Amino acid sequence: MNTSFFGELLQTISERGRALLERTRERRGDAAARSHGLVELCEELLSGRGEASGAALAREIFIRYDELTTGPRIAFFEALATRFGVDRERIDAAVDAWARDGNDEAAIELHLASEPRRQELFRRLNLAPGGTAALVSMREDLMDAMAHRDDLSPVDQDFVHLFSSWFNRGFLVLRRIDWSTPAIILEKIIRYEAVHQIQDWDDLRRRIDPPDRRCYAFFHPALVDEPLIFVEVALTSGIPRAIAPILGNNGSALRPESANTAVFYSISNCQRGLSGVSFGSFLIKQVVEEISREFPRLSTFVTLSPAPGFAAWLARERESNNPILLPEDLAELSELDKPNWWQDGAAERLQEPLLHAAATYFLSARSGTGGALDPVARFHLGNGARLEQLNPFGDLSEKGIAQSHGLMVNYRYDVDEIEKNHEAYAENRTIVTVNGIRKRARAARELAKA
Amino acid sequence: MNTSFFGELLQTISERGRALLERTRERRGDAAARSHGLVELCEELLSGRGEASGAALAREIFIRYDELTTGPRIAFFEALATRFGVDRERIDAAVDAWARDGNDEAAIELHLASEPRRQELFRRLNLAPGGTAALVSMREDLMDAMAHRDDLSPVDQDFVHLFSSWFNRGFLVLRRIDWSTPAIILEKIIRYEAVHQIQDWDDLRRRIDPPDRRCYAFFHPALVDEPLIFVEVALTSGIPRAIAPILGNNGSALRPESANTAVFYSISNCQRGLSGVSFGSFLIKQVVEEISREFPRLSTFVTLSPAPGFAAWLARERESNNPILLPEDLAELSELDKPNWWQDGAAERLQEPLLHAAATYFLSARSGTGGALDPVARFHLGNGARLEQLNPFGDLSEKGIAQSHGLMVNYRYDVDEIEKNHEAYAENRTIVTVNGIRKRARAARELAKA
Amino acid sequence: MNTSFFGELLQTISERGRALLERTRERRGDAAARSHGLVELCEELLSGRGEASGAALAREIFIRYDELTTGPRIAFFEALATRFGVDRERIDAAVDAWARDGNDEAAIELHLASEPRRQELFRRLNLAPGGTAALVSMREDLMDAMAHRDDLSPVDQDFVHLFSSWFNRGFLVLRRIDWSTPAIILEKIIRYEAVHQIQDWDDLRRRIDPPDRRCYAFFHPALVDEPLIFVEVALTSGIPRAIAPILGNNGSALRPESANTAVFYSISNCQRGLSGVSFGSFLIKQVVEEISREFPRLSTFVTLSPAPGFAAWLARERESNNPILLPEDLAELSELDKPNWWQDGAAERLQEPLLHAAATYFLSARSGTGGALDPVARFHLGNGARLEQLNPFGDLSEKGIAQSHGLMVNYRYDVDEIEKNHEAYAENRTIVTVNGIRKRARAARELAKA
Amino acid sequence: MNTSFFGELLQTISERGRALLERTRERRGDAAARSHGLVELCEELLSGRGEASGAALAREIFIRYDELTTGPRIAFFEALATRFGVDRERIDAAVDAWARDGNDEAAIELHLASEPRRQELFRRLNLAPGGTAALVSMREDLMDAMAHRDDLSPVDQDFVHLFSSWFNRGFLVLRRIDWSTPAIILEKIIRYEAVHQIQDWDDLRRRIDPPDRRCYAFFHPALVDEPLIFVEVALTSGIPRAIAPILGNNGSALRPESANTAVFYSISNCQRGLSGVSFGSFLIKQVVEEISREFPRLSTFVTLSPAPGFAAWLARERESNNPILLPEDLAELSELDKPNWWQDGAAERLQEPLLHAAATYFLSARSGTGGALDPVARFHLGNGARLEQLNPFGDLSEKGIAQSHGLMVNYRYDVDEIEKNHEAYAENRTIVTVNGIRKRARAARELAKA
Repeated sequence: MNTSFFGELLQTISERGRALLERTRERRGDAAARSHGLVELCEELLSGRGEASGAALAREIFIRYDELTTGPRIAFFEALATRFGVDRERIDAAVDAWARDGNDEAAIELHLASEPRRQELFRRLNLAPGGTAALVSMREDLMDAMAHRDDLSPVDQDFVHLFSSWFNRGFLVLRRIDWSTPAIILEKIIRYEAVHQIQDWDDLRRRIDPPDRRCYAFFHPALVDEPLIFVEVALTSGIPRAIAPILGNNGSALRPESANTAVFYSISNCQRGLSGVSFGSFLIKQVVEEISREFPRLSTFVTLSPAPGFAAWLARERESNNPILLPEDLAELSELDKPNWWQDGAAERLQEPLLHAAATYFLSARSGTGGALDPVARFHLGNGARLEQLNPFGDLSEKGIAQSHGLMVNYRYDVDEIEKNHEAYAENRTIVTVNGIRKRARAARELAKA
Repeated sequence: MNTSFFGELLQTISERGRALLERTRERRGDAAARSHGLVELCEELLSGRGEASGAALAREIFIRYDELTTGPRIAFFEALATRFGVDRERIDAAVDAWARDGNDEAAIELHLASEPRRQELFRRLNLAPGGTAALVSMREDLMDAMAHRDDLSPVDQDFVHLFSSWFNRGFLVLRRIDWSTPAIILEKIIRYEAVHQIQDWDDLRRRIDPPDRRCYAFFHPALVDEPLIFVEVALTSGIPRAIAPILGNNGSALRPESANTAVFYSISNCQRGLSGVSFGSFLIKQVVEEISREFPRLSTFVTLSPAPGFAAWLARERESNNPILLPEDLAELSELDKPNWWQDGAAERLQEPLLHAAATYFLSARSGTGGALDPVARFHLGNGARLEQLNPFGDLSEKGIAQSHGLMVNYRYDVDEIEKNHEAYAENRTIVTVNGIRKRARAARELAKA
Repeated sequence: MNTSFFGELLQTISERGRALLERTRERRGDAAARSHGLVELCEELLSGRGEASGAALAREIFIRYDELTTGPRIAFFEALATRFGVDRERIDAAVDAWARDGNDEAAIELHLASEPRRQELFRRLNLAPGGTAALVSMREDLMDAMAHRDDLSPVDQDFVHLFSSWFNRGFLVLRRIDWSTPAIILEKIIRYEAVHQIQDWDDLRRRIDPPDRRCYAFFHPALVDEPLIFVEVALTSGIPRAIAPILGNNGSALRPESANTAVFYSISNCQRGLSGVSFGSFLIKQVVEEISREFPRLSTFVTLSPAPGFAAWLARERESNNPILLPEDLAELSELDKPNWWQDGAAERLQEPLLHAAATYFLSARSGTGGALDPVARFHLGNGARLEQLNPFGDLSEKGIAQSHGLMVNYRYDVDEIEKNHEAYAENRTIVTVNGIRKRARAARELAKA
Repeated sequence: MNTSFFGELLQTISERGRALLERTRERRGDAAARSHGLVELCEELLSGRGEASGAALAREIFIRYDELTTGPRIAFFEALATRFGVDRERIDAAVDAWARDGNDEAAIELHLASEPRRQELFRRLNLAPGGTAALVSMREDLMDAMAHRDDLSPVDQDFVHLFSSWFNRGFLVLRRIDWSTPAIILEKIIRYEAVHQIQDWDDLRRRIDPPDRRCYAFFHPALVDEPLIFVEVALTSGIPRAIAPILGNNGSALRPESANTAVFYSISNCQRGLSGVSFGSFLIKQVVEEISREFPRLSTFVTLSPAPGFAAWLARERESNNPILLPEDLAELSELDKPNWWQDGAAERLQEPLLHAAATYFLSARSGTGGALDPVARFHLGNGARLEQLNPFGDLSEKGIAQSHGLMVNYRYDVDEIEKNHEAYAENRTIVTVNGIRKRARAARELAKA
């Protein structure tokens, strides 16, 4: 309760970070005066001078980096890949020692010798005020550069390694996002929403302010004003089959006490520079806990999710010489080619064939590694959710029709089964679902044989 | 200014941590019911189950660990050292690949293969609420155990490696400690003060509340209510030569506007479990910045430090066959054997011989690696301070007389010279000082030759 | 610095207030079940029962009041005016005692006897969670009702009396409004801006986020999420002559360090229910202090204000048989009748006549009580500002043309002269201004004689 | 949840208040230079100058007031009583108007005319930073002065009137006090505890830190770091009969989940300058609510209270010619004269006579106005509590023996009966109690007849 002493800690960080930003802008003017090279500064930071004046040096490096255009940045990444890579001679010596002694000390030296120098460089760059944000942003640039440069991949792996340690779940903080949240955070929620676009501030308000809505985000103490990932939740009566009523401006909120279901209808990662560090699973589970505490009567936690690979898969099925779907399904599904097919009688006729196709897509269509083909399915099944309900007319927006013929899916998070489901999927690629879906799926012949 | 949204983040962490503590206590009762072994739980945490229920598993592991007595704890550390060490076969394969390919991928695999499994275990243990604090505390136990068990040292190195990354300076937050600080923090200041003991709350208040006193500490967002290191500062007029007036209850504070000097008279590390992770240098430099901003007229930043190795060194000199000090100094210094020598006329006579001895101790007596023999000197010189003033009668307390015949030292932090001094010391073991001290030192013959 | 313990106090209030709102909504359902009358509840609150259960009773009263439609509300106000007025017999007795004794006790009793009972009722209604906000809102209803009901005016006077005590400047808190401010506050800034309308969130951001903009508001601890009054400030180089560049989206902010002038270009009261309680003078003076502390180099504090009565006054002048303005001015000013007169050459020709008219308007046109005719002028001159500059083409918006033929005014706040200016105006109705304006004014003949 | 924007408001107040304190100290030096009189400054504050520079003037007045010694302060209070009293001529005119018109306007003018000018003076003094605290402190001085000066009483009444409005329950904030509370608050808890003295910080910690203890205080936004009133609570199993086990250092806290009773064992007012403004009743009721929410299983809320008037009353009874107690009780109670009577067999023999005496004291002994004779009883019965249990050996400390022969009392707060009990006591002086106490009371003959 009276824990605000700690509460102010982050405030301090936050202010420091903002102040840096200001200073950074101000210094732009005298850029020309700085002739010393970025790589040399990095070497200094790794040397003794870095020990005496690390924070100042690190800040200087970021300021100069900011001033670079794309070309020089790529050159800098190359230097990170080569000049700040491993010390090959040290590795060779360590390998010899391992061959000779094979003891703990040799293993430790092998580990240290094979750590690229840039890892320590990154750790020291973090001394700069706002350093963590600057490193995350630097990795975004690197990802852009990597599109054409496979040789930069080891640098990227080091970023992921470091960020995985720094952004350990134990350091993340869950915060509710509502209408009392600072605008500087809210504008980022608008910007980062990746599933169902937020039109404007009024739209945002409809999603976070009514008593039957919740929004939660993870934050990290060192990232000023930046959500890492957030989830939007609607409290409903029963499991919803379509997204439009949830996004719509119906004006009448449900009294949260009357709800029995919490629907996670949108999860968005915010920091491209942190891709590869996974937060979503933790977020969903902690929000389930949070909401359960607030509304003990809620019994059902489900998503209302897109099926982004469904239309593409179905297209391949329809052209395949060896489809999994039965010919009669495929015949009926040719109606999908007609424009606005869902607006006339076709919709009703297509319901059952679509369910067959969808069930088959989720249960029988597999990726190269044997997991579910659908990426959203992989995420939720891997988290321990169960495939709960298929909604053929769940999203009739242009995007929804294009990517999944309107199909939406509910994945269900049942606290008592999460672990079991997760293991079933992780170990045997078993997709846990309900009978209604299972019996609608056409078994892929190859898999059936396997 | 309006950054309190972030300010509340840590509050949340703080509350979560405290709540865990409560729950931990409560669960003590049913300890007997848990038969499953700690090591097996750790294996589970590293396995797929850990991905689904990591936080709960990690918490369970800490609860059980807390219930262990010393013997089983050491057994657990042994398991960390052996069972959760490296995978030797994987290393061997990686070594082969390196020999064969010698490319980036091979280096990366070498690095991964030689990382002990306990590193990932520690990272996952951090998922538990309060996990960071629990890991720091676990390392304290390990350090106790290591007194007799050298084989546990690799485990300790992994802790240091991890903590160095997590407690990166970029994640630390400086906070002023004053009379508005929560009692739960203040009691730790009392407990952790290691240089000049704080007697009670009144004594504490004299050190943090008057307008001419300051106290600052570093905190980490994940360590609830726990300072990492703190420094006590007195604002004075001129460089003080003795500690008693600073600690004393003289009742009349200096108006801070009249001060020209800030004296760092005590620095204490708080977390034994973080030893090996260095904060002191950053703390001093940031506090210098902080105080300069508040009192732009302050021109001088010095310490008032003990000389913990002086008496022992002098004793060795006096018994040495080959002393550095001149015979006349040694003769006069025999007065130090008399009880209460400083209370009579001897004090005056001893002033100059003591200054000779002290100057010699700091400038000529060297450790095995060529650095200053005195550990406090090593710290401040390594940070870029300069040896500024020797005070033969600086600390006449029992402890002060015993460890240094009353000698205290001022090290000076001059912002413009820190880097230069640091490099001089780091590269050539040059001890930067003033002429007055330099000319009083007797040169060690061996060094003179070198 | 570490004062957050107190910082949390208001948070508590704020949460309490919001919770009430929720509960209020929820209870709407069983309104019919409450048959007991509002007036009877008020009597109870004033009686012994109120002492035992004041908060619950007060809350109940507000809930019922909220459910009333306009008619019954007016009836309730009537009851406040009559039934909860003074106790005439007690007054008569007190008057007798005063006549007889004429001492302190008699005066005190006279004071107590002549306090309407509703004053104590209001104080007890404040026991309800959110009571202060509810009382302010009740007064807004009363003000609507008073449009046709002069007999309710004594009730209104009691509200003003009470609010003047409760909203004493000593209890107000100045807060900067910026992009880190919670959305729930910012939406009110958008809504309450009364001078230069804020179009949308982007427009808001342009006014509070750039480094050369500031916005400050007064808050009261008991009014949840409600600014009382706010002022928008632009930092500029020189005193601006027009509002468009300030409101416009020019994209390039001035570096605040380069500014020498702070321009208060909009002040808006937020709470209609607090009209009659004056905050503006305090706000301007405290913001001047605040900004001076942040930017010590700023030398000039001016407003950029509308002249809302200018066009109407000039119209009267032009029709007057006995105008103050000279005939030649009036002749030229007839150009103002042409549509879009300011877009062609007329503008230049009109500059001087408009300055004559404006100077005369401010210096010679007086209200019935001898003060400045212009209400904005009365406010700033009464606060101690000086009439600094007239800008004939300051606001060419539709509204600006309509109410003042585009005229805007700078009033200057010079800390060293505020008191003197205030007294000159308060005591002698002297309007302090600069020579340039004074010599352009045509003296009103009547005033000249006086 | 995200309401910290408001949370920071008070922080601002708090900092402002502390800064004033600093400045005040600093300005002490040039006191001599201020020759202008305090009374004249007060006149200025009430005049036009006060409108322009109220805050600065008010601050100046407090600085000068602080420098006065007792004599001049009393002179200042005299000036408040006379010079800043009512305007007699204005009253006379208002009385005439009332006699003539007798309408609302006349009543209002009567009210305004009979308000002493010092009321407005106090309101304007509140403009100074820290003004509220300074006024409360000024009233403390006045209370000291009033010991010998009845004529100052009207000034005091004005303070009470103003403070009653400003410290309206609606503006108070309840805060839990625990080991995370800032030391600057905690030291005041130590200082202000008036019932069972707190020995030192360890004793304080035993009262606020263990899981079975709670402490709550009321704060006002304008009083920096100052609790107004606080209550200490122990969670117990059953209603306790003695204070020693609660205050003692028994080392083993009850698990709060096992408790069924909350015991309010100490309530202390903190601000002498606010005496006459009552907070206790509100505090107890709100803490009952607060604790009920945290521990829904708690069924019983009682006090463990002293009986400060019991020994004195019993002494009068024993000397009375016409005692209420029966002769046999009085005979046995003569044992109380023996030193340490409670330590031998006498204790057991005295149990029943003491219960007779205590029951009689509470039920039959009445004050001049017919209420309970015991002041603590008057407070709790007036709040709606019931006399629940008498504990003859409840407090065997020196103070406890001296003032009540060791007697302690439990008053019970039963939410459903508070209102009824309050009314019974307020209207008929009926003391609600249990049968066991009622039948032990000896009826006072006089009362029996009535």
